[in-house]
Amino acid sequence: MILSDEKWLIKQEKFEVSSIQETIFTLSNGYLGVRGTFEDLFHNETPGTYVAGIFDKSEAQVKELVNLPYFWGLKIYLKYEYLNPFECEILDYKRILDMKQGLLYKKMRLRDKKNRITKIEGYRFLSHDNRNLALMKYKITPENYKDRMTLEYFIDGKTANSVSHPKERVKHYFLTNHIVSDDYLYLEACTRDINHKVGILSSVEIENYHSKITRNYIDFIAQSIDIDPVPQNEYTINIYTSILDSRRYDNLYENNIKEIKKARNIGIEKLLENHNKKLKKLWDVADIKIFGDEKADKSLRFNIFSLLSLANPDDEIVSIGAKGLHGEGYKGHVFWDTEIFMLPFYIYEYPEAARSFLMYRYYTLDKARENARKNGYKGAQYPWESADTGEEETPKWGEDYYGNKVRIWTGDIEYHITADIAFAIREYLRATEDWEFFLNYGAEMFFETARFWASRAKYNSKKDRYEINEVIGPDEFHEHVNNNFYTNYLAKWNIDKAFYYLNILRNKYPYNYEKILKKIKLNEEELERWKDVSNKIYIPWNKKSHLIEQFEGYFKLEDRIITKYNEKDMPEWPENVDLTKLNKYQLIKQADVLMLMHLLSEEFDYETKKINFEYYEKRTMHKSSLSPSMYAIMGLAVGDHSKAYEYFMKTALVDLEDNQGNTALGLHAASAGGTWQAAVYGFGGMYIDDNEKINFKPWLPSHWKSMEFNVYYKKQLLNIKITQDSIKINNLSSLNNK
Amino acid sequence: MILSDEKWLIKQEKFEVSSIQETIFTLSNGYLGVRGTFEDLFHNETPGTYVAGIFDKSEAQVKELVNLPYFWGLKIYLKYEYLNPFECEILDYKRILDMKQGLLYKKMRLRDKKNRITKIEGYRFLSHDNRNLALMKYKITPENYKDRMTLEYFIDGKTANSVSHPKERVKHYFLTNHIVSDDYLYLEACTRDINHKVGILSSVEIENYHSKITRNYIDFIAQSIDIDPVPQNEYTINIYTSILDSRRYDNLYENNIKEIKKARNIGIEKLLENHNKKLKKLWDVADIKIFGDEKADKSLRFNIFSLLSLANPDDEIVSIGAKGLHGEGYKGHVFWDTEIFMLPFYIYEYPEAARSFLMYRYYTLDKARENARKNGYKGAQYPWESADTGEEETPKWGEDYYGNKVRIWTGDIEYHITADIAFAIREYLRATEDWEFFLNYGAEMFFETARFWASRAKYNSKKDRYEINEVIGPDEFHEHVNNNFYTNYLAKWNIDKAFYYLNILRNKYPYNYEKILKKIKLNEEELERWKDVSNKIYIPWNKKSHLIEQFEGYFKLEDRIITKYNEKDMPEWPENVDLTKLNKYQLIKQADVLMLMHLLSEEFDYETKKINFEYYEKRTMHKSSLSPSMYAIMGLAVGDHSKAYEYFMKTALVDLEDNQGNTALGLHAASAGGTWQAAVYGFGGMYIDDNEKINFKPWLPSHWKSMEFNVYYKKQLLNIKITQDSIKINNLSSLNNK
Repeated sequence: MILSDEKWLIKQEKFEVSSIQETIFTLSNGYLGVRGTFEDLFHNETPGTYVAGIFDKSEAQVKELVNLPYFWGLKIYLKYEYLNPFECEILDYKRILDMKQGLLYKKMRLRDKKNRITKIEGYRFLSHDNRNLALMKYKITPENYKDRMTLEYFIDGKTANSVSHPKERVKHYFLTNHIVSDDYLYLEACTRDINHKVGILSSVEIENYHSKITRNYIDFIAQSIDIDPVPQNEYTINIYTSILDSRRYDNLYENNIKEIKKARNIGIEKLLENHNKKLKKLWDVADIKIFGDEKADKSLRFNIFSLLSLANPDDEIVSIGAKGLHGEGYKGHVFWDTEIFMLPFYIYEYPEAARSFLMYRYYTLDKARENARKNGYKGAQYPWESADTGEEETPKWGEDYYGNKVRIWTGDIEYHITADIAFAIREYLRATEDWEFFLNYGAEMFFETARFWASRAKYNSKKDRYEINEVIGPDEFHEHVNNNFYTNYLAKWNIDKAFYYLNILRNKYPYNYEKILKKIKLNEEELERWKDVSNKIYIPWNKKSHLIEQFEGYFKLEDRIITKYNEKDMPEWPENVDLTKLNKYQLIKQADVLMLMHLLSEEFDYETKKINFEYYEKRTMHKSSLSPSMYAIMGLAVGDHSKAYEYFMKTALVDLEDNQGNTALGLHAASAGGTWQAAVYGFGGMYIDDNEKINFKPWLPSHWKSMEFNVYYKKQLLNIKITQDSIKINNLSSLNNK
Repeated sequence: MILSDEKWLIKQEKFEVSSIQETIFTLSNGYLGVRGTFEDLFHNETPGTYVAGIFDKSEAQVKELVNLPYFWGLKIYLKYEYLNPFECEILDYKRILDMKQGLLYKKMRLRDKKNRITKIEGYRFLSHDNRNLALMKYKITPENYKDRMTLEYFIDGKTANSVSHPKERVKHYFLTNHIVSDDYLYLEACTRDINHKVGILSSVEIENYHSKITRNYIDFIAQSIDIDPVPQNEYTINIYTSILDSRRYDNLYENNIKEIKKARNIGIEKLLENHNKKLKKLWDVADIKIFGDEKADKSLRFNIFSLLSLANPDDEIVSIGAKGLHGEGYKGHVFWDTEIFMLPFYIYEYPEAARSFLMYRYYTLDKARENARKNGYKGAQYPWESADTGEEETPKWGEDYYGNKVRIWTGDIEYHITADIAFAIREYLRATEDWEFFLNYGAEMFFETARFWASRAKYNSKKDRYEINEVIGPDEFHEHVNNNFYTNYLAKWNIDKAFYYLNILRNKYPYNYEKILKKIKLNEEELERWKDVSNKIYIPWNKKSHLIEQFEGYFKLEDRIITKYNEKDMPEWPENVDLTKLNKYQLIKQADVLMLMHLLSEEFDYETKKINFEYYEKRTMHKSSLSPSMYAIMGLAVGDHSKAYEYFMKTALVDLEDNQGNTALGLHAASAGGTWQAAVYGFGGMYIDDNEKINFKPWLPSHWKSMEFNVYYKKQLLNIKITQDSIKINNLSSLNNK
């Protein structure tokens, strides 16, 4: 294994335990996610092992992505005493995330108190070729001693969710099976409420050892291998691990054995090669090169790497949590983040993945229908937070700064996600022309979401208009507002586009048209109501002043302007703001009006965008990592280039520099998608016009020499090379076809 | 709770994790033992929770005293962040073992990085009044803050035996039941091989809290209690824990609930009072006061405290392991240590306890018979190492310094323990006149052990003598020796004394005589053989030179004399000694010939003792903690006073100063008994003459002003006050009777 070029490498050069670094060094292949803890598993680390879609509730307030047993444990003992790096002199240290190869490399040289020097070098990865496989290889060199060395490989079942928090901590699994032999170590976890089973089987490959013992310690299992070393000899240990779960497999033990036998036959080097081939295919499309700005180039690549890591096109019943498979923030729940922030990346770079994430929404459509019904509406109301089944999983209660219970309302009234999903379906269809998906799945979701809005809007007879009251828009500082511009506008859009698609279907796909209408029992009478809602829904937009009121009454709130920024260049609270009463002020958490102007860019003119950008930018606290990327894009759209670059770097570095202060809890996956959008929509200036033609109006910061990226559009792979004064578009598909 | 006077206190004044201190601060009440780890249970501590008699084998080489779940967990969080003492400034710190009250006190004042000062003060104890109860009380004072404070009480099921050793580590229990509610936390462990169940139930008493949650984390259970504190207010948390096991109880949960309800009704202060009353009764008899030598006084008291802690007269199916209930050294196994080193203390200070330990040997008599049978002998052969059933538990294999497997022979051929037990029965009977015990239990053991020796001795027709060949004597440096003086002498003694008791029984207790002979099928013919063995057994004692040869051929071995002592004043190996071939040298591990001269002091004259003391003292490496106390006693017997005092302090401080270097693994319980013997037999000069009269020939070091102690002898409690020039004996029983 040779490390890739510098631009592919994220490095840690100082040996320390850091929960931020654990998130950054998380490996994931869309099925599995493993946080970047050390193999030793030091007591103050926060291990995380997650399988996409394995949720459980137990004593938690809502379902959580289960922190499963940790399977990459490895400790070294000399004469049966633990070689604790924290009690050694660190002669050499490096951990490197090699994004090209999708692996985490570690090198360490330790001198212990008895002057014994040990070198450890190797790597681990989660295969993109066979997502059930986790591989680890270390070479250990006792440089100057022949004391007995023991390598202890272990699978640790002592993990729990929110492990260091006495109130949030929940253990979500029982250990239901332990099978150990010299050949295999098997631990099976069963979640407590839902009874998902996850079987983890490992096999240790090692030569020139003296003896080994394999044991069941109930809460962990381990194999320890004694070596009587020859100084300077290199001892290689390869760990093959297969992880299967009961959603897809019976006989977890037997099937894991099969996987491991296959894997060991192939060998770890070849498995790495296969993994790299798969990754290369993805990188060949998705990589973006920025020349002239190494920091922007590498940090953008890290965001793309994260997005590539989170996709698993083979699994249509899961989607991406707000924190990826990188940590326990937001309990692994799926928000609008997936459709609005991440999906564009997948649509243009990895369409199979985009499709599978939309299929998750189809898979959970019935629950969205139930949800609407439960709340007194028609159609499908998607949950604000979603886990495995698509039920609403937003916790009802949280704690404020003082530890007092506060009611969380987003699960009740942050409705816009339902339109966001419809929007994503349109984006996907337009870019991919995947009518097979649309006819069989997308259309049904589209019509059911439109139907939801038609039922949710309430007729105000005094004003002869439809209203959507008591909502939360994207900006969550303001709860229980009426006629949020974003929500109402996108609701109307959802209904209007539904008519548009109904027309297409009626004309071009009459069979499907009939079938869907029959299935969802949609009739002319109901469509009349839709039309009425669309015509009369209230959109608080003063087209003369161009300024859009975020919601009805927003302009009457106390006005506070942001004037100060902290050391991370993030806004500081203006003086005299009561943080418990943010409903009172015009300060907003994140892009809201601006958000919509980005999504439906073609529907707003330059003047409107500029005036609203200037107004809202001064009032946006960016207390959500979803915000800066949108301001980068909109900044570029209105010609505020310097701010746009700042915002871009903020969103690109959100995790690498922990500028939201909570990277420890997991990746900012939406921000990763936003970073890609800021690069491609923003600097790349990509937009789709009314005729569904793809266009590019790029603008590069002056120190960028050039930028290069690819996008799939309507089944063609386009290569775009942008310099300060030129743009070159190549259709790689037609090149290939020649 | 007010701490006792200085002479009762063992202190730790520097905050640190120390496995030695964990052993010293172990609490025990004979049923339970809990190592002195901190309530926090820091990652580098070695928690130990043991129930006397709960052994299990699982993957271990032999049965081990099971390290059970730890039930004294307590952590403090401020705003849900763990208040880690290691990340605080320690403003004040003390841990104190109060031996009078049998409790472990702790006081700590911590200043964290946010300048919040927290005071923690309290204590814990294992009740001597109700041995199933463990109590803990802490007062916590947030001195200068009102941040939310969370107290997390937990029972930890993640413990294992030999936890830090990758090869020795064994987990001996499953957790078979978790029941948690706001009132009770219940965790049940079931040992893996033997299926002993141990149920641990706790209840937390606390006032003025905000809210609490109680949870099952599978491998531990916890209750966390939120407090919104008033600065300077004291918050008191009392933890009541009841521990029951399936050897005596069904329905562990229900019965524990009963215990806890009773305990909570009584209240922790009153429970402490009751505990102290019981302890006071023991101390009133057993305490030894040395005036003029505080160090000797306190360290002797520590040894007595340990011995009092290990006794449970109510449990006749357990005995004391070599390391007490204080650690996992020697796996909790029972050796001759109990009968030869500790039992004298109990015989003279706590006769009910002595009886119960001898009853353990009766309880295991059938296994000793089986053992003899298995090895081709008659009678009862007691195992060198014994656990719960009395089967031989000595491991067959160990590891030498280089990690090579070496055969351990003690379990096969260190026979003398069988005579040691007979010896202890005589000692007990002589001092207590407990004929009820002897007639029902002791005699049967005595005859069966004599019978063993008669079958073990082999007739050498060439020399017309009986020999006991291929043995290990007390000195374990020499394996497979022939005619070890100690062994042969005590074997003969065992047989001779058996005749003595047979006579008494025949004359005074004919009913019992007949009954026993019938039960063990002992006939005249066999007694003839016994007589023959006794008459003709070879005792390698040259009565002319007075010098006794430790075993046949010992004097022909290479002679090495100890000339150097290390910084702890322990012998250093003479030069050119091959540590892998100790069979070659006259160097010995511990008292052997001298040992016997102590046991059967009346059978050796002064001259013989002196000559042998001088010879063997120079050749004894004291690689066993059983050795120094014997040399102290024998030193006094032969007038070598200065060495005797040195040896006494060595044995008295073996744990407090860790002078054997392995206190971390548990108490040196035999040394504790040896210390008492050195004080009472040595300085006190106590001996029983041929007429079974008790006598005292004291000698005090010149700086000792006086020494005072009590002994029970023939149902009388004698008080002995010794000064440099006087001795005063009071019969306290007759005083009381007046």
